[in-house]
Amino acid sequence: MNDTFLRACRGEEVEYTPVWLMRQAGRYLPEYQAVRSNVDFLTLCKNPKLAADVTLQPVDILGVDAAILFSDILIPVEAMGMRLEFSEKEGPVLSEPVRSKSAVEKLTIPDVEEDMPFVFDTIRILIKELENKVPLIGFAGAPFTLATYMIEGGTSKNFLHTKKLMFQYNQVFHYLMEKLTDSVISYLSAQIKAGAQAIQIFDTWAGILAPLDYKKFAFPYVRKAISELKKEGVPIIYFANNCAGILGELKKVGDDVLGIDWRIDISDAIKKLGKKIVVQGNLDPCALFLPKEKLEERVKEILWKGEAAKGHIFNLGHGILPQTPPENVAAMVEAVHTYGRKK
Amino acid sequence: MNDTFLRACRGEEVEYTPVWLMRQAGRYLPEYQAVRSNVDFLTLCKNPKLAADVTLQPVDILGVDAAILFSDILIPVEAMGMRLEFSEKEGPVLSEPVRSKSAVEKLTIPDVEEDMPFVFDTIRILIKELENKVPLIGFAGAPFTLATYMIEGGTSKNFLHTKKLMFQYNQVFHYLMEKLTDSVISYLSAQIKAGAQAIQIFDTWAGILAPLDYKKFAFPYVRKAISELKKEGVPIIYFANNCAGILGELKKVGDDVLGIDWRIDISDAIKKLGKKIVVQGNLDPCALFLPKEKLEERVKEILWKGEAAKGHIFNLGHGILPQTPPENVAAMVEAVHTYGRKK
Repeated sequence: MNDTFLRACRGEEVEYTPVWLMRQAGRYLPEYQAVRSNVDFLTLCKNPKLAADVTLQPVDILGVDAAILFSDILIPVEAMGMRLEFSEKEGPVLSEPVRSKSAVEKLTIPDVEEDMPFVFDTIRILIKELENKVPLIGFAGAPFTLATYMIEGGTSKNFLHTKKLMFQYNQVFHYLMEKLTDSVISYLSAQIKAGAQAIQIFDTWAGILAPLDYKKFAFPYVRKAISELKKEGVPIIYFANNCAGILGELKKVGDDVLGIDWRIDISDAIKKLGKKIVVQGNLDPCALFLPKEKLEERVKEILWKGEAAKGHIFNLGHGILPQTPPENVAAMVEAVHTYGRKK
Repeated sequence: MNDTFLRACRGEEVEYTPVWLMRQAGRYLPEYQAVRSNVDFLTLCKNPKLAADVTLQPVDILGVDAAILFSDILIPVEAMGMRLEFSEKEGPVLSEPVRSKSAVEKLTIPDVEEDMPFVFDTIRILIKELENKVPLIGFAGAPFTLATYMIEGGTSKNFLHTKKLMFQYNQVFHYLMEKLTDSVISYLSAQIKAGAQAIQIFDTWAGILAPLDYKKFAFPYVRKAISELKKEGVPIIYFANNCAGILGELKKVGDDVLGIDWRIDISDAIKKLGKKIVVQGNLDPCALFLPKEKLEERVKEILWKGEAAKGHIFNLGHGILPQTPPENVAAMVEAVHTYGRKK
């Protein structure tokens, strides 16, 4: 197996900088669109055969160094008892937002294998099909990010409902976070047991908080999840979006790899994080619209700066956009493999 | 006149930390809603008597230390030849986005007094009415932020059109930025000549760029505008939203005061900015939903940390939200005046 990615996660020596892309299985690929033309998004997430197929697409087409389970961070939220729908325009919709103690009480900690069997079936299919290729990354949303969706009922501009609950009913908020943390731990443990060789925790909305609120309301829960999951023995990646203002905290979260967004120079992040954490990132997803030579220049610059860290995994600073030309993605992966080769 | 705000802008000694709020004249105030119940938003912007009235409301109601002209950053964009509308749901809509060289060519540099007389009339009314009260802040959008609205046709999630133009047709983008910079300079110069005693340049979308793109595509233009406007002799405030990753650049922009958002600890910002810049900010607008004692604690913490800067002007880290309870805003202003008093 090409275990470059796993070795990079552990800060071990590698022949070249490994690369994968957040949302690498998705709408920018015509091969994915072909599958989606017959099934809606949630049905695809819940069909192990098809979910495994689309997970494999970028591995075969782009030659990335890791596969990541095709799923959605809100799958376990549905398993906790909320009604989940996806609208083409608005994205995820949770029609009965959680904004009271009684709403939190109603949420169940899922029996993960029972309630989401398709996730683990997908992983088991993938482990067979990926043999001798690349490692499989499992994933979940971070407790705070999941909480925002549950409280807002979807995405949000100002996250006012989330912050109102945090600020005015902080015991209810903490109660919700505890339930979410337990769910995330059991969900990811089960993914690892099913075969996932690394896991990533997505904290898409970590960066909407003032640092003191991140520290109080989000950090303790994701740190707890990471510390529990560390016992499983696989590398843990924590992606904290819009992280520039909270790097001081992120340094202490206990993960193996910190995924950073594009709004900070990777050199500045590495300086702040020190030598104990592997860094993943951080090309602006929109940079994939650059002409090829300019794109290569940016890849080289990030690779070069990434050398200063304990280890570096190349990735985007956020999920790939559906409009991205696949040939540019291929050029990016090739550039990482070419210019990221160690002497 | 209470010139505490102006002295703080210049880094001079003050008896207490002055405070004003971004969007302090606006929808959270019932007195503003009363005016708006008869006129739409754009009509209000263009009616000097009414615009002056709503500008004065927070001065009278809250006792803030500065007034800020009631207007919208897109007023000069309309004067450059674009059709501007405001939709309750989507916010500003510019129906023919600028995405080509010919579209940029069509834009005119406004004859500001001729094309936007209402702005300067409003300022002249305000200077009379504010006499012996507080200074008046004029404002404009930063060239980059205005460019995003013109290219996207409104607000955006990923700013893909903006970045595509930057990346694929960078000469067209630079051409647009030059025109915008000239417009901003003449617009703000005229505001100062009409009587504005300080100006703020709003760069709401500065933080969507990777630092190397901010440096190349946004920074040179706002720096040029600031350097030209400095000749007018009034304090210049530059508000760069989501600034944590670009503080290294912001340090060099040449303003008197840097306005920062809430996603960075003000101490971290001051450390990075050094002793030559006055800092403005940075309470999370959602913190205005905290119970009064908790709100006071946060105000105190920011005031205390702000002491480390050359000077500090208390403000929110972004515009006040329409849902904000006015009594909490009053409590915040009072807390700043109480706890920001120098021994």
